[in-house]
Amino acid sequence: MTLDTQAHGVYPIAPTPFFDDGRIDTASIARLTDFYLGCGATGITVLGQLGEAPKLEHEESLAVATQMIRRAGALPVVVGVSAPGFAAMRALTRDVMDRGAAGVMIAPPNTLRTDEQIVGYYQQAVEAIGADVPFVLQDYPLTFSVQMTPGVIRRIVQELPSCVMLKHEDWPGLEKISALRGFERAGTMRHIAILCGNNGLFLDYEMERGADGANTGYAFPDMLSDVVRLSAAGQREEAHDLFDAHLPLLRYEQQPGTGLSVRKYILHRRGLLSSAALRKPGGSLSATAVAEVNHLLKRLARHDPRADLPLN
Amino acid sequence: MTLDTQAHGVYPIAPTPFFDDGRIDTASIARLTDFYLGCGATGITVLGQLGEAPKLEHEESLAVATQMIRRAGALPVVVGVSAPGFAAMRALTRDVMDRGAAGVMIAPPNTLRTDEQIVGYYQQAVEAIGADVPFVLQDYPLTFSVQMTPGVIRRIVQELPSCVMLKHEDWPGLEKISALRGFERAGTMRHIAILCGNNGLFLDYEMERGADGANTGYAFPDMLSDVVRLSAAGQREEAHDLFDAHLPLLRYEQQPGTGLSVRKYILHRRGLLSSAALRKPGGSLSATAVAEVNHLLKRLARHDPRADLPLN
Amino acid sequence: MTLDTQAHGVYPIAPTPFFDDGRIDTASIARLTDFYLGCGATGITVLGQLGEAPKLEHEESLAVATQMIRRAGALPVVVGVSAPGFAAMRALTRDVMDRGAAGVMIAPPNTLRTDEQIVGYYQQAVEAIGADVPFVLQDYPLTFSVQMTPGVIRRIVQELPSCVMLKHEDWPGLEKISALRGFERAGTMRHIAILCGNNGLFLDYEMERGADGANTGYAFPDMLSDVVRLSAAGQREEAHDLFDAHLPLLRYEQQPGTGLSVRKYILHRRGLLSSAALRKPGGSLSATAVAEVNHLLKRLARHDPRADLPLN
Amino acid sequence: MTLDTQAHGVYPIAPTPFFDDGRIDTASIARLTDFYLGCGATGITVLGQLGEAPKLEHEESLAVATQMIRRAGALPVVVGVSAPGFAAMRALTRDVMDRGAAGVMIAPPNTLRTDEQIVGYYQQAVEAIGADVPFVLQDYPLTFSVQMTPGVIRRIVQELPSCVMLKHEDWPGLEKISALRGFERAGTMRHIAILCGNNGLFLDYEMERGADGANTGYAFPDMLSDVVRLSAAGQREEAHDLFDAHLPLLRYEQQPGTGLSVRKYILHRRGLLSSAALRKPGGSLSATAVAEVNHLLKRLARHDPRADLPLN
Repeated sequence: MTLDTQAHGVYPIAPTPFFDDGRIDTASIARLTDFYLGCGATGITVLGQLGEAPKLEHEESLAVATQMIRRAGALPVVVGVSAPGFAAMRALTRDVMDRGAAGVMIAPPNTLRTDEQIVGYYQQAVEAIGADVPFVLQDYPLTFSVQMTPGVIRRIVQELPSCVMLKHEDWPGLEKISALRGFERAGTMRHIAILCGNNGLFLDYEMERGADGANTGYAFPDMLSDVVRLSAAGQREEAHDLFDAHLPLLRYEQQPGTGLSVRKYILHRRGLLSSAALRKPGGSLSATAVAEVNHLLKRLARHDPRADLPLN
Repeated sequence: MTLDTQAHGVYPIAPTPFFDDGRIDTASIARLTDFYLGCGATGITVLGQLGEAPKLEHEESLAVATQMIRRAGALPVVVGVSAPGFAAMRALTRDVMDRGAAGVMIAPPNTLRTDEQIVGYYQQAVEAIGADVPFVLQDYPLTFSVQMTPGVIRRIVQELPSCVMLKHEDWPGLEKISALRGFERAGTMRHIAILCGNNGLFLDYEMERGADGANTGYAFPDMLSDVVRLSAAGQREEAHDLFDAHLPLLRYEQQPGTGLSVRKYILHRRGLLSSAALRKPGGSLSATAVAEVNHLLKRLARHDPRADLPLN
Repeated sequence: MTLDTQAHGVYPIAPTPFFDDGRIDTASIARLTDFYLGCGATGITVLGQLGEAPKLEHEESLAVATQMIRRAGALPVVVGVSAPGFAAMRALTRDVMDRGAAGVMIAPPNTLRTDEQIVGYYQQAVEAIGADVPFVLQDYPLTFSVQMTPGVIRRIVQELPSCVMLKHEDWPGLEKISALRGFERAGTMRHIAILCGNNGLFLDYEMERGADGANTGYAFPDMLSDVVRLSAAGQREEAHDLFDAHLPLLRYEQQPGTGLSVRKYILHRRGLLSSAALRKPGGSLSATAVAEVNHLLKRLARHDPRADLPLN
Repeated sequence: MTLDTQAHGVYPIAPTPFFDDGRIDTASIARLTDFYLGCGATGITVLGQLGEAPKLEHEESLAVATQMIRRAGALPVVVGVSAPGFAAMRALTRDVMDRGAAGVMIAPPNTLRTDEQIVGYYQQAVEAIGADVPFVLQDYPLTFSVQMTPGVIRRIVQELPSCVMLKHEDWPGLEKISALRGFERAGTMRHIAILCGNNGLFLDYEMERGADGANTGYAFPDMLSDVVRLSAAGQREEAHDLFDAHLPLLRYEQQPGTGLSVRKYILHRRGLLSSAALRKPGGSLSATAVAEVNHLLKRLARHDPRADLPLN
């Protein structure tokens, strides 16, 4: 499986499951992968920012990615390889591509400021990992403090043929999708896949603007899958109805910092993770926050039975 | 009317109405003020960040504030006086307090980093405006890049008696409200009013955490007023039902940068502003964005008839 | 006097003199202006960042600029008009140009990130102040956190004919001067004046790279004038010898934050300012720092008699 | 050798030598270590930020540190272990301490903002690496964008007994040294070693403020050693004379980004590095910059014969 510009659908951002003591929980990785396979995912992204990638050592990263690649079978697995230096990035890329990854994802270091610095960084990254490795450009200013204009993205796409997909999570970001699709129509940029992140907070309209799907870790990827399908099928109001029912919870999970604890808590309640623990440094939910999430789930369950979860 | 720590309910953040050519539109100021009076507002905040305050000259700021203060009658009006220097801050404060403002609001300059710098800044600000002027502490890291811990807010509250209210808009921010109310219960901080901003994105749970109301400019302050009232009255599910119906639109309006154009467009459609224009530098909505807002309004109107607006 | 692209020599950044209680000290403004006239300055810049411009009210800014313009006679005076909004920028520009300013200086707001945002900001600024007002582009990333590549500067220069001068204070910045002069030689950018700031920390080599002079407030503008003259005359080693003798003190004065207190202290010791006070918020020098500056002056006096100052 | 609070003198920040193709150059590591041993260094710090640590893989980091530890014999070697996650930090710490490192150095991630976040980070770091490993607190706001007040440093020192040394490189930073030594005199903070970085730009006065020495990579550590010795011996003017002679070059080497290329170029000319190359991403010097450095060396050689280098 090689990632290409035809990617679409839902690529969940897989969290890395830990036991309470911080060890990696391989049984949960297996369960999670099977769940993605069963809920309409068209790919998986592992070791993203919210996969707690920076907290893992190289050998751990490799083990997690390898297990997921093997378990996912025919499903393409994209591996986050962002690193402070190109040596580590190249090493992880080489190792996971050898083990069957479909491509890699690269986030910009938060020191980049000018257009030239951004383009230059990706040129060097491609030189480091090899021009034959398909890569996903991650555009997440809220987290990485790097602002890429549509023009900068176009330069990267045009200069680096191995850039096949944009993980779009600028905020606000709707006009950016329109601008990029406009470049394509105008013939000034080749086509790339655009899958949306930022917990899917604007997935409803992002699909209508021309996105190809979702690439985010919201705890109900099955909902994301339905929304993408409904929207692609032109069932607009149905897509919005389902999305809106999830929005109160989705917004709660989208909170920076706190959000990953919410996500893991729900995945734990869904029986997919044996523990909701984050590896250090990381937070946990207060009792009040847990009660709020439970309240949100209960309210959601009126509209979507998948949220009717047993308390475990 | 003097602002004090008993402030509660909804203080809308008033936008500054402009004509298409950038001149201030006084008729719309009058209309807007009357609308706030009629929709359950318990106060008004004028010349906030989203009141485009930095784009006004001193005389204009004074004129806008004065008109609103007079028109609002018994309703307390808080005036944003944030400025790059204390001379301008003091001048505007003196002028608006002379004209009957209930208090002022001060945002931190985005160069502040350490706890000491933040506390020191507010000490100097109070020295500049006078310790007899009640002030609202604005805590909005997303916009101002200044992070105030609960401990820093407590220091400001304890050292500066004229701090009577917190405009709470940290994100995530629920635990911060709990922490501050915990300080009050533990007797380590005196009581202050906490009214929530950030377009009300978490107003539903903020009320349950102990907030006293909303201090934001969402285009349906009448909804905010209802949610605050329902929540205070213990009608929890009704409060959430109303809030959730608005959430898709509210989220859309909360987008940084773009949001103010959305807000002014809706207020224009509600017949309150004669033009949706922002003063330069400012944006405008693309045709697609306008269509999206209209779509959101139409969907909202199924739940809240106030969103059933004539196209003007 | 109208500023144009032939500007060269030394434009001192004039500090704004205050009495200890924060009032503006007009006698010191007169003295300072006369001093600049006598020490080889070819122009003066007033109300820059280190002129404490953000701490002044509009009327004060106007009074300071007007006094200096009148006193300076034939010497061109550039006025800093940077402001959080274009209304205030336009108002001050109009007022000072009416009173005889040679041009204005505009710093970028620290929220600008992408190339497009930077270029767009200057386009709007020119629209606000009028295309007939010559302006100085201030490029000071250390203070303003805005990074302009040579390419961005070229776009501003090419798109905005009223941009006549660059206040160059990027750090490191030598290659930027070479790049801009290279654009000129290659015919891809029209000629502009480049005068250097950042307290002159690299003035020695900046002159050799193609700068036209200095535009900074170091407390010995007479030395800057000599270095610029010697360098322009090809007396390279003499220029370096004089510069190097000042470097220990110059470096001390270049410290961010503290530096302005050092500068005003020396100007006070030189008999030009009646007080070394900064307006609030501002710092002051510790007794140890004062002793260090005195030590530096004493050591400098061995090489440059101008540093042999009476203790006042 | 275990690092403790009595550390003093000069701990050069060792660059990591690379061949032009990016491979690590072990012969140069040996040569460099021997040079440090011969020029009065009292310790060595390896794998700092300017040791290009983020560009190395774990195995490479370990190899470089191990070689230097063995070669340095009785001289204490401190190893930079800063990492995006605690797993990698713990792994490298464990490995280098096993191989005889005297302690480790930890820089703060540039996402830390509030006092609590900074203190909390170091608490977690110590938990990760073990409370028995002595560590150096690196305080370098210019590079890491994290601002630590003296009060925050005191909290870290008081709460974490394994903090034995401060790599002081705040700028401006003289008052910080005075504040910390004042805490010690007042009995509110235990004694720690303070060694100064930031290329030694203020080493002359830092020594007089109470610093214990230098911890920086300026290409003439032999000069640093002399200045520290002269200053400690009370030969004040001699210390300043030597320092001032180096200041023009030292300032040139202190330029952010460019500086490391300057440093490696001079170390190459001194015959210590076989190549001046940086590993990617990294820069190189323009021909003009090389000429400037050579000019600076030539001028310096008039005062310090060590700068009279053969062109190689």
